[in-house]
Amino acid sequence: MLLPLGYRYASTYAGIRKAKKDDLSLIVSDTPASSAAVFTTNLVQAAPVRLSKAHLRSSKGKTSAIVINAGNANCATRTGEAVSLETCRVAAAKLGIPVNQVLPASTGVIGVELPVAKITKALPRVIKGLSASRFQDVADAIMTTDLVPKTAFAEVAIGNGSIKMAGMTKGSGMIHPNMATTLAFVMTDAVIPSSVLQPMLSAATELSFNRLSVDGDQSTNDMLVLLANGASALKPSGDDLDLFSSALILLLQDLAAQIAKDGEGAQKRVTIDVSGAASDEEASRIARAIANSPLVKTAIAGSDPNWGRILSAAGYSGSKFDPSKVDIALQGVQVCSAGLAAPFSEKALKKKLDETECLIEFNIKGRGKGKSRFWTCDLTKGYIDINASYRT
Amino acid sequence: MLLPLGYRYASTYAGIRKAKKDDLSLIVSDTPASSAAVFTTNLVQAAPVRLSKAHLRSSKGKTSAIVINAGNANCATRTGEAVSLETCRVAAAKLGIPVNQVLPASTGVIGVELPVAKITKALPRVIKGLSASRFQDVADAIMTTDLVPKTAFAEVAIGNGSIKMAGMTKGSGMIHPNMATTLAFVMTDAVIPSSVLQPMLSAATELSFNRLSVDGDQSTNDMLVLLANGASALKPSGDDLDLFSSALILLLQDLAAQIAKDGEGAQKRVTIDVSGAASDEEASRIARAIANSPLVKTAIAGSDPNWGRILSAAGYSGSKFDPSKVDIALQGVQVCSAGLAAPFSEKALKKKLDETECLIEFNIKGRGKGKSRFWTCDLTKGYIDINASYRT
Repeated sequence: MLLPLGYRYASTYAGIRKAKKDDLSLIVSDTPASSAAVFTTNLVQAAPVRLSKAHLRSSKGKTSAIVINAGNANCATRTGEAVSLETCRVAAAKLGIPVNQVLPASTGVIGVELPVAKITKALPRVIKGLSASRFQDVADAIMTTDLVPKTAFAEVAIGNGSIKMAGMTKGSGMIHPNMATTLAFVMTDAVIPSSVLQPMLSAATELSFNRLSVDGDQSTNDMLVLLANGASALKPSGDDLDLFSSALILLLQDLAAQIAKDGEGAQKRVTIDVSGAASDEEASRIARAIANSPLVKTAIAGSDPNWGRILSAAGYSGSKFDPSKVDIALQGVQVCSAGLAAPFSEKALKKKLDETECLIEFNIKGRGKGKSRFWTCDLTKGYIDINASYRT
Repeated sequence: MLLPLGYRYASTYAGIRKAKKDDLSLIVSDTPASSAAVFTTNLVQAAPVRLSKAHLRSSKGKTSAIVINAGNANCATRTGEAVSLETCRVAAAKLGIPVNQVLPASTGVIGVELPVAKITKALPRVIKGLSASRFQDVADAIMTTDLVPKTAFAEVAIGNGSIKMAGMTKGSGMIHPNMATTLAFVMTDAVIPSSVLQPMLSAATELSFNRLSVDGDQSTNDMLVLLANGASALKPSGDDLDLFSSALILLLQDLAAQIAKDGEGAQKRVTIDVSGAASDEEASRIARAIANSPLVKTAIAGSDPNWGRILSAAGYSGSKFDPSKVDIALQGVQVCSAGLAAPFSEKALKKKLDETECLIEFNIKGRGKGKSRFWTCDLTKGYIDINASYRT
């Protein structure tokens, strides 16, 4: 693990969720970090999302701490604003930092009051536990229906030194492309001002978290925060900044793909590659429609090479193309050529589709160079099991 | 059953599907009927959809027969055009009518060649079996994954007589609002020209089949045809025409709601009523987002009054509203008041949600009079069972 310098982490069980599993986490930067963030575009936004936005504005993008609770979204709650603000106030007072340098984040059930006393009572304990090596504890504690924690790391060589980057994310259901889906936190020790970080993060999100779909539902709490505290004293510019930006994209794509793999009930991760569209946007619309189609996703669950459903989903995507120019391959095996059935061994392909990684390639001939990659997962009975009784 | 005058029906087993269940049907009007139709907006359109459109254009909206096969969509097939045309040619020749007065319709798997000989060989047998009383046989024979046939009837008193209307539909999965979802055929003996029928059918579809969602997937073969053969010699106008139009809307809503009830794997029909929006369009966007949300639909499957998911789905619908002005009721029990949790008996409501008819009411206060009703069903393991192995 290549952890960036100047960050400390801790988690504890504050009693917010029933299961006795850490549910309150803290990420602290030793010095105020330049920061950038993307938030859900849902009209219904949880109190912590609104307060984080306000804090980033008033602090001019400086962040010293992130307080995260799992088990309760603090959304559509009477005391939402007060709870998030009090959380930040207590954390700021104990850490000796301005309140607007604390970002709150919540994930869990919507519409249930979050008792602030549980958080404020547990905060001193969390702060006491802060350590540069407890990154993984936080990655564990922010999980809800996730089966596995999701982390990714990168190192970018600059001159004689190296910038480090470490990211964690949580999310398994209620996941839909468009905006920072789920919670994600990325820390780096590079020296980069917020004004440079923000457009870089927005562009990288477009190529990663916005290309991910588990069930087409978009959460009220989604946020992705990027902190750069400058502890490495390395300030990338020119080609080095491009390299850093590429590393960020790859790290976020890695995290997004981990979410697809851990999609609620998922047995298989599905990668969808669309190429030959008139533009990348056109390709993305097609990839998104395929990624969101319950019929495609149940066919993958059953290892059924039902390419007609893929063609049909592309057909209602809103993108224009000539169906007779479409080739489709599953697991590298061509199943549709020029819009018609291609000969293939049903038995052999079914076996390939039993693997846990599935690839759908959708290519349009003679239209353009637009391409897009999306990630999703298969739709199984496990998804129903998890979601028919999540709340109670 | 109030069957309209001047129509005959028949079905047979032509061997198109494996299961030995009638798969080839014929609806014949004794005289050329004025007709109107709505078709899928999917870019990928099956050969019968394209040919039906062409025939309606060239016949100036006159139709004498509809040939329907189940078990094969005749979509994305090499011989698609030829098969549909040959089907119409043989039917026309045997019935002694112009070929462009025959509409073909197909439903079933995509991308598998449809052997035309099976149809042409069976057509004489179907024609021989034509009878005014075999309406129900056709309603049975057009089913695919449907568990029950779906029919609806209406009678509109005009002067001393009455106009009769009889409709049938099929569809269970791959169902999404926007255009005549699934196959539907409505016959009436009214005297109404195509020029009046078409806008009436389009408007009625908007209020019925376009408000229906099972899984958000839109088929390549969807078509809804309305025939008016004038056999009653009654020509409604003015208030009578309005009455006829209302009866058509009610009949189509009845058929659409039957599809929701028979949604693949559905245990429950869900009706979504949105009110208080700025416009009906705004209300429809909210209702559609709720109807399409897998998280809402799995919660209903588990009788979980998880109103947070309903509010969240409305929040990403694209419609504007103030979440703090929203009331939500489930089965008539208020669960969310002014965007916040309302007190209710969890146990009592869970019991009410176990019923096979579920009502979600979503009301926005102080915004407007826009309203919309949508139909959907719960999302269960049965949907996965059916769709993980439909093709093979």
